[in-house]
Amino acid sequence: MPELRKDPITRRWVIIATERAARPTDFIGKFSDDMADRDRCPFCEGREAQTPPEIFSVRRDGSPADGPGWRVRVVSNKFPALRIEGNTARSGLGMFTRMDGVGAHEVIVETPEHDTHLALLPEEQIADVIRAYHQRYEDLDRDERFEYLLLFRNHGRAAGASLSHPHSQLIALPMIPKRTSEEIDAAERYFVKRGSCVYCDLIAQEFAGGERVVYENERFVAISPFAARFPFETWILPKAHMASFGGISAADVPAMANVLKTTLLKLALCVDNPPYNFIVHTAPYEFPRSPAYHWHLEIMPQLTRTAGFEWGSGFHINPVAPEDAARYLRTTEVREEALPT
Amino acid sequence: MPELRKDPITRRWVIIATERAARPTDFIGKFSDDMADRDRCPFCEGREAQTPPEIFSVRRDGSPADGPGWRVRVVSNKFPALRIEGNTARSGLGMFTRMDGVGAHEVIVETPEHDTHLALLPEEQIADVIRAYHQRYEDLDRDERFEYLLLFRNHGRAAGASLSHPHSQLIALPMIPKRTSEEIDAAERYFVKRGSCVYCDLIAQEFAGGERVVYENERFVAISPFAARFPFETWILPKAHMASFGGISAADVPAMANVLKTTLLKLALCVDNPPYNFIVHTAPYEFPRSPAYHWHLEIMPQLTRTAGFEWGSGFHINPVAPEDAARYLRTTEVREEALPT
Repeated sequence: MPELRKDPITRRWVIIATERAARPTDFIGKFSDDMADRDRCPFCEGREAQTPPEIFSVRRDGSPADGPGWRVRVVSNKFPALRIEGNTARSGLGMFTRMDGVGAHEVIVETPEHDTHLALLPEEQIADVIRAYHQRYEDLDRDERFEYLLLFRNHGRAAGASLSHPHSQLIALPMIPKRTSEEIDAAERYFVKRGSCVYCDLIAQEFAGGERVVYENERFVAISPFAARFPFETWILPKAHMASFGGISAADVPAMANVLKTTLLKLALCVDNPPYNFIVHTAPYEFPRSPAYHWHLEIMPQLTRTAGFEWGSGFHINPVAPEDAARYLRTTEVREEALPT
Repeated sequence: MPELRKDPITRRWVIIATERAARPTDFIGKFSDDMADRDRCPFCEGREAQTPPEIFSVRRDGSPADGPGWRVRVVSNKFPALRIEGNTARSGLGMFTRMDGVGAHEVIVETPEHDTHLALLPEEQIADVIRAYHQRYEDLDRDERFEYLLLFRNHGRAAGASLSHPHSQLIALPMIPKRTSEEIDAAERYFVKRGSCVYCDLIAQEFAGGERVVYENERFVAISPFAARFPFETWILPKAHMASFGGISAADVPAMANVLKTTLLKLALCVDNPPYNFIVHTAPYEFPRSPAYHWHLEIMPQLTRTAGFEWGSGFHINPVAPEDAARYLRTTEVREEALPT
């Protein structure tokens, strides 16, 4: 059973998901990536039996679960960091606090096709992926043990992807992650002081200046943040105030598919299909309608190596000015056929 | 001139150290590592002219600066993230705050020998390295623009090292990094509540239990932290309360050399010379004698890939229980000749 442990000083939680090993060097093999090629990829159509049973799918009418015919498929992670069984009682031992590693860890397989990218899927297909995110977001909200949903995507080995078949992941947590709390606390302090949402004000300021705007459609905007940690870091925000990703409407979905596809394509064309992570920052389940917080998606290309200094201090060195990154991305013409494979 | 920018929401600072590039893809080449081999390594003895002039050295009596004869040599980083010239006035633009990228960025070359590791140097040589750290710590304290000194080491390409010749780095900053402030604030809250240093209490609890103690000598202890983020993460702490690394005495230096060498050797032998980062966590220059904070050194082996989820949430998944890591490290016999090269 995995375990959740809290650092007594910084109050950050970690997941200790122990793999028993006979010798310490056994760990090394386990950590190396094993990118399954398409001949044995468990996410390909026709190999549904190789994954845990499907939790949700978007599939051809009448096609049975766990067989072919799907366009998007959600399954439990076969090697979950947290497990769905258990309770959320915390126990202490002197200064230390721990609890069972309770949570959900699911994989959203974004397409039956192996050799493609999320950015290359048709917008309608990306809209189906977003609908799957939303269905899982809402469904896991019903489990009252969960306080937060982390929705994220790793693209490329250097960004931590262990299977190349396009997929995203989600982890439902029985607590709010520390970085999320920090962001929310900061937004609430701003709201108390100014009476407005800091992200709404940020969007207004970015539109007024324009130099860090990458792309916009009627409902979403993509910007290079002023204090970007990573070269070509890009945030996607809904233009209208909305605290929770769970609040997106049916009409928001195609617009989100459009901004996500366009931004990821520009990034792939501009800096040669970089490894990246994206993560959805959303309000906790308890406060879906906060006037202070504003959900958004942060895309972090992994073009630089992160060194100890950054880990230890939270202080990042970014060699690309956000205004330059935005200009390059803004002026990159979206041509799918030009994408490096 | 590099620039320091503050995120308006999380108040985290970043360094924007722009390299001008004609095309965005030019960035990619710049980010790739270029490990100089020993034939052209600028840190090797005899190539002193290839670095900026030396700031400090431990060298043979009478040997002139910037020539051979040194055992430890400190020079400015040739490609500094921050520059020593400039002032620390902050300017705002709407919600945003920026300042000139003022700071010091120095390299501590730990030995004239190219093909070795810090862990393989004699303890007396490691003591010289620590004396160099201490001299730079004290010297940079005299520049009143600096509030904090980040002292760190990257070992191996996967940990961000760009030159294999053994070296550490320091960055003096005109502000306290956010992660440091968080740690200090947490320690101060604990002190107000309990009247004791949280790290002193932690050391006492770890000695009482013993299962996470890796090594100790008369003045220092190495432990696997209860909520370790990384497999085989290890912290080295002085046993006696001491807020600032600047407070180490002449008698502490050999004991620190001993615990550092022993811990790094055990790690190298136990998990096959892993890439690692270490970082010294110390009190800010302004509060060198805080009763609440306790300086220490955190070693973070880089055996797992960090994925988006960890970046976005601060939530780490560690596949090795700290008690297992401590047991493996504790029982690893220190034999230098067995170290993989």
